[in-house]
Amino acid sequence: MKSQAPCVILNEPQLAENIGAVARVMANFGLENLRLVRPRDGWPQDRAWASASGADWPLDGAKVFDRLEDAIADLQLVLATTARPRETLLPVLTPREGVARLTHVYNEGWASGMLFGGERAGLETADVALCQAIVTVPVDPRFHSLNLAQAVAINAYEWRLTQDAGPPPSFREGPPPAEQASVHGFYAQLESELDAAGFFHPPEKRASMERNLRVAFGRAQLSEQEVRTLRGVVTALSKGRGRVLAKLAARRKDDPT
Amino acid sequence: MKSQAPCVILNEPQLAENIGAVARVMANFGLENLRLVRPRDGWPQDRAWASASGADWPLDGAKVFDRLEDAIADLQLVLATTARPRETLLPVLTPREGVARLTHVYNEGWASGMLFGGERAGLETADVALCQAIVTVPVDPRFHSLNLAQAVAINAYEWRLTQDAGPPPSFREGPPPAEQASVHGFYAQLESELDAAGFFHPPEKRASMERNLRVAFGRAQLSEQEVRTLRGVVTALSKGRGRVLAKLAARRKDDPT
Repeated sequence: MKSQAPCVILNEPQLAENIGAVARVMANFGLENLRLVRPRDGWPQDRAWASASGADWPLDGAKVFDRLEDAIADLQLVLATTARPRETLLPVLTPREGVARLTHVYNEGWASGMLFGGERAGLETADVALCQAIVTVPVDPRFHSLNLAQAVAINAYEWRLTQDAGPPPSFREGPPPAEQASVHGFYAQLESELDAAGFFHPPEKRASMERNLRVAFGRAQLSEQEVRTLRGVVTALSKGRGRVLAKLAARRKDDPT
Repeated sequence: MKSQAPCVILNEPQLAENIGAVARVMANFGLENLRLVRPRDGWPQDRAWASASGADWPLDGAKVFDRLEDAIADLQLVLATTARPRETLLPVLTPREGVARLTHVYNEGWASGMLFGGERAGLETADVALCQAIVTVPVDPRFHSLNLAQAVAINAYEWRLTQDAGPPPSFREGPPPAEQASVHGFYAQLESELDAAGFFHPPEKRASMERNLRVAFGRAQLSEQEVRTLRGVVTALSKGRGRVLAKLAARRKDDPT
């Protein structure tokens, strides 16, 4: 399998000009796969091409998604770039450290992405919780409002630096991380069973409880086999209910007191 | 004499929006001294402030010059940033190498600057010849047209990395990993419930199945809170059995068919 450079995922970008500026820096630094989640003004937008200064190919090939989950479904490592680390238990990396992880994944032939939030609001905690690590550009705390294309530029530049040199040695043993779609499938199963078991109470805490669980599992970077195993775990633990039911029913049949 | 961070010199910049974008990335990365040589549309320009997103101080303090020689007259080291090294005998540096030189000068208490050409033409050979070294951002040769503010951003970012003597972003935010005893307690609970649910079959695979589960959870480096949450998950999923049992028993009591 041919290695693919990380894709750039823009979550709810607002201005088409910024999407074009992102495409331009992607081309500057050798990235080409662009994914857009719910661009505010729809897609395609002529103004994006106008501001890309000829870097048309990331725009021509851009894929548009309704949901972030779908945009990252086939990726094995997703880094969330945000200036404000939230109260998640994800590792917080510099761009250089983040790119080192992406490079490792790239050298293994796996698929990865860098996620950026929209111009105004950045990334929501729930978006960050779908990622495996946070990348924070080391801006001056007195003025941390980094333009979207600049944030992409810094990370893409660091990526490019690693590609100029030879590949560093890989340091993860064993099978590759699962695609996010598998991981999300596991989350859905787990959360549905927990729901059935009355785990999520009080209801207003449900979102944060789900998020905390996802972060813990996300940090593990589960393999496909591990996802299957964990699904089996949830099934086994939940199915017990069914079996107890069946056994009781059988007992009632045999011995209708 | 107090050390001054390098100034940013824009030679014949064209668009006021780009000057504002430059001010913004300067503020992002802790630079504040901006010098403009023959800005095409004159100075000041409201559009510069409009595109600086609040990074007004580099614009408010910007000095304007008619000649590049005057703009760099008081500096002791000037680096010319250009994508196309000319036939000068100046050293050609990466941004990182260039910033290393600037840092040295800064630590000596000397004054330095980074020179950038206009949007269309970049720097002329005569301009470059006034500098002590060339800095080339390592763009992809297939698309080397780097936006002016992006070129400043990359160099300013590298500068900031050298100045950011503060604590690096922690590898891991938040509470420390749980003690192993807590983790092992969770393993014991999980494995006992899985046993009860008939998960471990065939029996001779039990050891490797347990090991695989432990490895996956181990990689997540769970916090104490996460261990408690996961114990709650297992309890919730398993207790269903008890509840179903109780419900059935209650039903049998109410309605003994």
